[in-house]
Amino acid sequence: MTTPSAVSAVPAYAAPAPKAPLERTVIERRQVGEFDVLIDIKFAGICHSDIHQAREGWGEAIFPMVPGHEIAGVVSEVGSGVTKYQVGDRVGVGCLVDSCRECENCKAGQEQYCLNGSFGPTYNAIGRDGTPNYGGYSQKIVVDENYVVRIPDGLSLDVAAPLLCAGITLYSPLKRWNAGPGKKVAILGLGGLGHMGVKIAHALGAEVTVLSQSLRKKDDGLKLGADHYYATSDPKTFEELRGTFDLIVSTVSAPLDFNAYLTLLKTEGALVNVGAPEEPISLNLFSVIGGGKTLAGSMIGGIGETQEMLDFCAGHGFGAEIEMIRGDQINEAYERVLASDVRYRFVIDTATI
Amino acid sequence: MTTPSAVSAVPAYAAPAPKAPLERTVIERRQVGEFDVLIDIKFAGICHSDIHQAREGWGEAIFPMVPGHEIAGVVSEVGSGVTKYQVGDRVGVGCLVDSCRECENCKAGQEQYCLNGSFGPTYNAIGRDGTPNYGGYSQKIVVDENYVVRIPDGLSLDVAAPLLCAGITLYSPLKRWNAGPGKKVAILGLGGLGHMGVKIAHALGAEVTVLSQSLRKKDDGLKLGADHYYATSDPKTFEELRGTFDLIVSTVSAPLDFNAYLTLLKTEGALVNVGAPEEPISLNLFSVIGGGKTLAGSMIGGIGETQEMLDFCAGHGFGAEIEMIRGDQINEAYERVLASDVRYRFVIDTATI
Repeated sequence: MTTPSAVSAVPAYAAPAPKAPLERTVIERRQVGEFDVLIDIKFAGICHSDIHQAREGWGEAIFPMVPGHEIAGVVSEVGSGVTKYQVGDRVGVGCLVDSCRECENCKAGQEQYCLNGSFGPTYNAIGRDGTPNYGGYSQKIVVDENYVVRIPDGLSLDVAAPLLCAGITLYSPLKRWNAGPGKKVAILGLGGLGHMGVKIAHALGAEVTVLSQSLRKKDDGLKLGADHYYATSDPKTFEELRGTFDLIVSTVSAPLDFNAYLTLLKTEGALVNVGAPEEPISLNLFSVIGGGKTLAGSMIGGIGETQEMLDFCAGHGFGAEIEMIRGDQINEAYERVLASDVRYRFVIDTATI
Repeated sequence: MTTPSAVSAVPAYAAPAPKAPLERTVIERRQVGEFDVLIDIKFAGICHSDIHQAREGWGEAIFPMVPGHEIAGVVSEVGSGVTKYQVGDRVGVGCLVDSCRECENCKAGQEQYCLNGSFGPTYNAIGRDGTPNYGGYSQKIVVDENYVVRIPDGLSLDVAAPLLCAGITLYSPLKRWNAGPGKKVAILGLGGLGHMGVKIAHALGAEVTVLSQSLRKKDDGLKLGADHYYATSDPKTFEELRGTFDLIVSTVSAPLDFNAYLTLLKTEGALVNVGAPEEPISLNLFSVIGGGKTLAGSMIGGIGETQEMLDFCAGHGFGAEIEMIRGDQINEAYERVLASDVRYRFVIDTATI
């Protein structure tokens, strides 16, 4: 019988209080339980939502906070009941590390929409054992094997890390809303989420257009797989592209004129939001009634679909575009994310924590 | 060779100016062209949108206005090129009497979403010949055969008339969004549109719930085919029905708290609007992101789908629930529609005009 190991003195970066800079610290991880795996984290992506939460932009949060839900690493220990993973496996952890496992959605692989409200975020939440969940800006994490995915051979851990949130957040709506051959898909916003949208929509066979505020990143967009690139600051864009798209996926969290973007859809087209402004939007319902259009939302994806996405990206030979940073550059990286100055995802080399 | 007949001195009711009461008048109809049919109108439904337009609630309108786009009658003359209809056929005309016929949507039978903006409304529009289109509150109308549908035997003309707008407006989204066995469908609002939604959703095999302001019409709703009936003025309704519906079709044109109604949907459920408030709505995008939900719109239906709907209703043995009125009761009927005092559609017996 295995005696659970304590996992103490794990180096991490944490925000000690709302809006405070992140600082190096050490944290405790729970003992490796029967169905848990201990992961040596190698890389952790910086998601815009880390900043929202560390600064309480989405409401009251739990501090100290170790953000990070784009985690890639290697299994270093497994509980006695673990069947899916063994020591040495290359694995990832995304936005959730638990859910009720009993509701219709959990059973259907939509754990992110757990109906019992037991969705367990990777950080900024209290776990089943009553202690805070700490995220990926650290060197080790203990996670139930059911919330761990396998990173396929051929996909480097560093470029795989951002797929765990940015990748699945775009893959799920692109699949559900039928991006593929013969379909015209626009990706609104070319940041961490948007650049994955371009890669995935292109790999799915769709004709891809980037809609970005300016043409500043046009060369990048075309290299990433976009067929067209338009500036939304140019009013002519809205005239020229009227009625063009089967699907628009908006990754933008700044306020937008949604009535204007809905005019860019074909009849019965869909505008799906994975980013959202903090304030309510104003919508003229005639914008969806004329043309039988859809305004929808999508939130990350389930565990099974995350595995499918990783396999898809590996099969097409791509991960995220990243800029590697050290632990002591996290605060600077936050400022650069807020200034849209990242191409396209910061990834922390956790060896430097 | 047939010489086209002039169709003059047709008795009608018209609004002479915005917000003015409707008055009896006579109008001229265009000559019966090669592909036209002349229809002796027997019955015309009163749609809420007639009132919106006669009172310029949706913007500047064309006067004098003969409203009416729920038309049932009998063919009394056909042009030389007409192939689909002959004298004596029982036919209907709905919300459109023309479209470009060349765009992708027109060719696909979605004439209501004509991409060339050549959608030709039955009234409050200028026709191809440069003269105003006049609607169904009259004894005769001349319509291109491609915009005429057949009223099946066994469906009385009086209860068929409202199907031409209210029926198709509900049938189209219920079909598109998969109302059927195993699906829980809510119809929001039990007026002229809503009562057709209940009948059609029930006939499609869905489990139907009416969401109405009060329980005043509960007995009616259950008789029409609803399985459940809830008052939206009771806050307990929102607690009890949280996460219940695959589909909600809103027929309401009063302002609503859409964020609250979206909580009533299941994961990946859809709230489809066929009614719309005149003012923009306020929407928190997190209401659609959590649960992957959809807010959509739908506008009437195409000509082919309107025929399908009439055949469906006839096959299930139902038309609309109507209250027959004389021409001189139209103004009173408008007031009663505005007061929600109609069960469920006023139909004008055009012999009384």
